[in-house]
Amino acid sequence: MPGRLVVIGGDAGGMAAAAQARRRDASLEIVALERGAYTSYSACGIPYLVGGEVTGGTEALVARTPQVFRDDLRIDVRTRHEATGIDLEAGKVEVRNHEHGRSFSIGFDQLHLATGARPVRPDLPGIDLPFVHGVQTLGDADELLAHVRAVDCTRVVVVGGGYIGLEMAEAFVNRGSKVTLVESAPHVLGSLDPDMAGRVGDALRRFGVDVRTGVSVESFEPGVAHTSVGPLAADVVVLGLGVTPSNELAVEAGLATGVKGALVVDQRQRTSHEATFAAGDCCESFHLVSRRAVHIPLGTHANRQGRVAGINLGGGYATFPGVVGTAITKVCGTEVARTGLNERECKEAGLGFVSATIDATTKAGYYPSTGPITVKVLAQPGHGRLLGAQIVGEAGAAKRIDTVAVALHAGFTADDLLDADLAYAPPFGPVWDPVAVAAREVLKQL
Amino acid sequence: MPGRLVVIGGDAGGMAAAAQARRRDASLEIVALERGAYTSYSACGIPYLVGGEVTGGTEALVARTPQVFRDDLRIDVRTRHEATGIDLEAGKVEVRNHEHGRSFSIGFDQLHLATGARPVRPDLPGIDLPFVHGVQTLGDADELLAHVRAVDCTRVVVVGGGYIGLEMAEAFVNRGSKVTLVESAPHVLGSLDPDMAGRVGDALRRFGVDVRTGVSVESFEPGVAHTSVGPLAADVVVLGLGVTPSNELAVEAGLATGVKGALVVDQRQRTSHEATFAAGDCCESFHLVSRRAVHIPLGTHANRQGRVAGINLGGGYATFPGVVGTAITKVCGTEVARTGLNERECKEAGLGFVSATIDATTKAGYYPSTGPITVKVLAQPGHGRLLGAQIVGEAGAAKRIDTVAVALHAGFTADDLLDADLAYAPPFGPVWDPVAVAAREVLKQL
Repeated sequence: MPGRLVVIGGDAGGMAAAAQARRRDASLEIVALERGAYTSYSACGIPYLVGGEVTGGTEALVARTPQVFRDDLRIDVRTRHEATGIDLEAGKVEVRNHEHGRSFSIGFDQLHLATGARPVRPDLPGIDLPFVHGVQTLGDADELLAHVRAVDCTRVVVVGGGYIGLEMAEAFVNRGSKVTLVESAPHVLGSLDPDMAGRVGDALRRFGVDVRTGVSVESFEPGVAHTSVGPLAADVVVLGLGVTPSNELAVEAGLATGVKGALVVDQRQRTSHEATFAAGDCCESFHLVSRRAVHIPLGTHANRQGRVAGINLGGGYATFPGVVGTAITKVCGTEVARTGLNERECKEAGLGFVSATIDATTKAGYYPSTGPITVKVLAQPGHGRLLGAQIVGEAGAAKRIDTVAVALHAGFTADDLLDADLAYAPPFGPVWDPVAVAAREVLKQL
Repeated sequence: MPGRLVVIGGDAGGMAAAAQARRRDASLEIVALERGAYTSYSACGIPYLVGGEVTGGTEALVARTPQVFRDDLRIDVRTRHEATGIDLEAGKVEVRNHEHGRSFSIGFDQLHLATGARPVRPDLPGIDLPFVHGVQTLGDADELLAHVRAVDCTRVVVVGGGYIGLEMAEAFVNRGSKVTLVESAPHVLGSLDPDMAGRVGDALRRFGVDVRTGVSVESFEPGVAHTSVGPLAADVVVLGLGVTPSNELAVEAGLATGVKGALVVDQRQRTSHEATFAAGDCCESFHLVSRRAVHIPLGTHANRQGRVAGINLGGGYATFPGVVGTAITKVCGTEVARTGLNERECKEAGLGFVSATIDATTKAGYYPSTGPITVKVLAQPGHGRLLGAQIVGEAGAAKRIDTVAVALHAGFTADDLLDADLAYAPPFGPVWDPVAVAAREVLKQL
């Protein structure tokens, strides 16, 4: 396909597409616009940068610099260039060059949107004070780290007990800060069922995080976060309330949006406009278990969707069949993972379920350094189709979730999973893998 | 189902069946005959007992003692009782009580065979000398440990570079012995392709094992193993040449045998005799990728097949659909796993294949303690159905094989595996899981 491809957004969803398009079509002109200073970085690594496990500064998280894209893939990457408007009919993007303070427009034959998402900032008094930080882009990380270097951050308040909130809480404990985590729900990690999430909350407390569940933040003033149970002193506040798709450009351009305002795309990652594709945190995904559109902003999906979009933009044919809701983290020495649907999501999808939760060990019981692992499996009553799983445990526990993730893709029943020929040796688990034990127990509930 | 069930063999394949039968049928009389002194133990743990990682003696490897079976499940377990003959028509088993030196016969309504396997002992001069040890049962472990305590085992020769050979080599290095491993093939670990197995051989050498490939053992005399390249001094010799089904009783009784003399069973684990079932190392399994009968003696299969046989013996209905050839080990700090078919097995099964081998990291590249992982994936040309995978790498590498194992059960193509929503966070892998990267690379070969 000849002509010019303009990519808006220089992280995974954008640059994976740009790279694939280039590989498919050497003649394509590819321009990538990135508002910030970085391309293709691991935002998931930010907590480890803050916590000090990863050294070398924000650059350590950059997979590919703009120069590498220019030199190796002939992609015209323009950082500090913000797309400010899209005219789909005219095939033009308005661009603001923040480096030189100039605006210009650029024509496109094909457009790819990877505008990502931004941290949710509830409309609270003081939310825009400079000591309140969201953590989504590497630029955000730069700002947070500058703050941390400038101010002695002994007291940290993390607002929100999702993955990023927990990881940031751990990071600041690792820096030596006194960390309070405020979560309005009765448990941290709303993506897990309360029984499983409770174990993660316990792990945080053991690690020294002051976890306040059922508490909401009401306002901020310099040095203080006011909550429903009183003020908390804070040298820095980190927001971990999730993200919302950065969809303004797309909405103004008239593109269709769906769940949480994320862009509607088809299996090829095409938006409602023929020549416009999209990938990553700004898009919906199709959930293969609930059979519904969802907004699950994760780096893996951004990379996968970007790859698919890029193949299509480059004249090939590829599809992104959907997601099963897999996520994983390690926080305060405890590994946590989930896939499929949790109880709440089953109810929302109108799917009946039974569940079983089992306790086992990560290695053979007699093997040194064996640790606890808890596995919960959900399945549909009757035929027993698997609906989801959650894992909490010590080293070696959580990556087992991939076994269930693949089983969900395959439409396995609990019986099928129990029959699976999983690997066993004493350094890797008990003879019945904990995932198989959970499948066996859920079978008894059917 | 009323009457008496006689189980021959007190390890996993036997006792898993006995326990399941009891759970299904409270009225059944269950007698379990075990030649040795132990029931339900982890033979896979023996190398860690010898190497000193596991303390507490052989009892540490026992999951359930005979007394527990008697007390909790009303199973009449008789240790040191060897079945010496079976009369299927009369429904009788001849038994030798080694404790009292007496023989007797016992009638059965149903019979379950879990006679296991024994280490291959090639017909070489001196093979029966007491310093030459096979390692299959916990009784074997007792004998080996007694030898090791009685004699200063500074020089150890391990014959055979399969899983047990490698694990025993590592165990003796951990004990401070000088270990020579002799393997007649050009590489250790014949269950892996040579390119992958070579990495394991390198790991053994780095650990201090003197690995001699292409060398065969010709005879033994006290203190010496004679090989094709000269004599090797040895205080103890450990055989790691694989195992052969202990099928004599079954063959004499007229039961059908197949691959390597293993018992032929149907999906319910029923032998060629209506009232006789079998499970574990004495049985064939059906390989779901090659669609052929195989003999893969592993504790996981013994437990799974025993469970299925027990449900059927107890009057229920269960099937064991088959295996995909998954195996895993950790040796000298290197994790190794395989599933499905390797190149040789593809050729034997008449299946064309393409393959891709990729190098990646076990965690995000920038994350501390990230290590190398190599993944090889085999798929059929054209449609790309997955045929198998092999993994060699550092901590966290090998259990990823389960992802491919489930994909093989599901009949996935390389495309399907690439589409799988696998878990990602920096402490657990790169954003593209190494297994997905290997699937992506094999797609390019199709």
